[in-house]
Amino acid sequence: MKPDAINARVLLVNRPAGVAQASDFAIAHAAVPEPAPGEILVRNHYLSVDPAMRGWIADVGNYSAPVAIGDVMRSLCSGEIVASRNPDYAVGEFVTGWFGWQDYAAVSADRIVQRTSPAEAKMALGILGLNGTTALLALTTIGEPKPGQTVVVSTAAGAVGSAVGQIARIHGCRTIGITSSPAKVRDCVDLFGYDAAIDYRTEDVGARVAALCPGGVDIYFDNTAGTISDAVMRHLAQKARVVVCGTASYDRWVPWPDGPRVERHLLVKRARMEGFVLFDHMDRLDEAVGTLRGWIADGRLTYQEDLLTGIEACPDALAGLYRGENRGKRIVQLV
Amino acid sequence: MKPDAINARVLLVNRPAGVAQASDFAIAHAAVPEPAPGEILVRNHYLSVDPAMRGWIADVGNYSAPVAIGDVMRSLCSGEIVASRNPDYAVGEFVTGWFGWQDYAAVSADRIVQRTSPAEAKMALGILGLNGTTALLALTTIGEPKPGQTVVVSTAAGAVGSAVGQIARIHGCRTIGITSSPAKVRDCVDLFGYDAAIDYRTEDVGARVAALCPGGVDIYFDNTAGTISDAVMRHLAQKARVVVCGTASYDRWVPWPDGPRVERHLLVKRARMEGFVLFDHMDRLDEAVGTLRGWIADGRLTYQEDLLTGIEACPDALAGLYRGENRGKRIVQLV
Repeated sequence: MKPDAINARVLLVNRPAGVAQASDFAIAHAAVPEPAPGEILVRNHYLSVDPAMRGWIADVGNYSAPVAIGDVMRSLCSGEIVASRNPDYAVGEFVTGWFGWQDYAAVSADRIVQRTSPAEAKMALGILGLNGTTALLALTTIGEPKPGQTVVVSTAAGAVGSAVGQIARIHGCRTIGITSSPAKVRDCVDLFGYDAAIDYRTEDVGARVAALCPGGVDIYFDNTAGTISDAVMRHLAQKARVVVCGTASYDRWVPWPDGPRVERHLLVKRARMEGFVLFDHMDRLDEAVGTLRGWIADGRLTYQEDLLTGIEACPDALAGLYRGENRGKRIVQLV
Repeated sequence: MKPDAINARVLLVNRPAGVAQASDFAIAHAAVPEPAPGEILVRNHYLSVDPAMRGWIADVGNYSAPVAIGDVMRSLCSGEIVASRNPDYAVGEFVTGWFGWQDYAAVSADRIVQRTSPAEAKMALGILGLNGTTALLALTTIGEPKPGQTVVVSTAAGAVGSAVGQIARIHGCRTIGITSSPAKVRDCVDLFGYDAAIDYRTEDVGARVAALCPGGVDIYFDNTAGTISDAVMRHLAQKARVVVCGTASYDRWVPWPDGPRVERHLLVKRARMEGFVLFDHMDRLDEAVGTLRGWIADGRLTYQEDLLTGIEACPDALAGLYRGENRGKRIVQLV
């Protein structure tokens, strides 16, 4: 850290009704903070941009308190410890954690999620972080994949979905992806090994799922809700599992959207539908990262990254996700 | 069996769009059938009337093939074996099974569900049959009740619901019932031990559930779907379980009804929603009946029956259930 370093910070300045736009944020500059006793000072190298941020900003029921107006935007980050007043963490170590969209953060150790390394600092925000571990733990704990079963994934080329498809395949499943463009359909099949992929913008999802899944859908890994899910729900197999991992089809839940009722599907198919939030499974994070690292090393698991550069990219980065402009995990590189 | 006995049979003569009305059935008379080799001849003493019959008649996707036009109405029955050409079953034994709305049925052994006794022949269609075993197995396998948790039950005074409430209480849970009249509210509290009951026809279900369940609803045992369930879903506790056991709010699923989407509730609350059909659990039926019998014997489990008399009562009996005119399990007594 240079003595005269400045901390650029992305603040939430307006609470949007739907997805936060660039104008809902402002970049402010401040002195680099001093760590208090027990704290560390992290210099962020990478900032994460996640669809779930929509919910972290929304002022309605969610799994965490909303980011306050005027606060630094909450995010997972990956960076280097540049000062430490905590004996458990040394200067030069790399860690990920809740450091926010800013250059520097002085935080207590409970804001750290995992230790990482220079080599994995970027992956630790994607395939070896929130996205990969969500894919692995949600698929295995709720989905319970078994060889020969059919798995349908929405946002199939996304940071979570692409990992889900590959991990399902590693478990011996047939995999069908649902995505949003011809390029992403190709990525699904060519990069991520899906047996087939559906472009929901141009194809009849229900008809295609019916044709591709003659025995029904054993696992539906749902990142969207909305009409994509409605189409898949009509084709569940007996004893199907629906992993509710995201609701990307909706940029707001006020007013609450209606859709076809699911009760009859669940009853007739004796199916299960369950929500997954990674923060309930932090005790399994290291184990999950180890598993994913092994699959990457032996070539069975790959990933895409959508790298933006400089903190100025942050304010529009979330809105861009909802516009579907990214290919793979969106990360902002600072260093 | 008298040699000149006549077999009165209730035939489905029209496929209704919603709930079958009396005019959708006709009573026809025929000779008592002769059992073929391997078959038994049962004289039905009691016929069951169940909300699920709506689905068995409907010509849309369900968990069993629809009853054909001109066929005897499918039902569980309880009766005495009056002739047997099967060495495993003796004349004079009592059994329950899929014998249909008729006086006599000549059936193979695979249509038998359980052996029973003269003393339990009627209970074997309710609290010791489909209803009680559904309540016990659905609550315990999907609901996973734990002491101190809060359980909300819809159709709380019904044949399944009243058993669910009592069994949840036996498991140490607080129980809140939702039902359809002041008389049933009183039954819920006075007969079935609910801590409180809500009349959905006159009260604000959401406001009452919120007030009665300050820590949220840990288990929602859903027999209705519809607006009752929509109100409960907004008050799920973290890690809640929703047992989807019936959809009594709807007398048809063509056209498919819409409602508030559940995905966001399931995600934010990490909740699970799962359909239950007893026929998947027949291997546990004897064990469940034994458990229920024990609770009845020691006074911890009670039940109501709504007894109709004579096969002429059958055609209107199902429509009557959907009009809500019964108090407890509806059974037609023939002998």
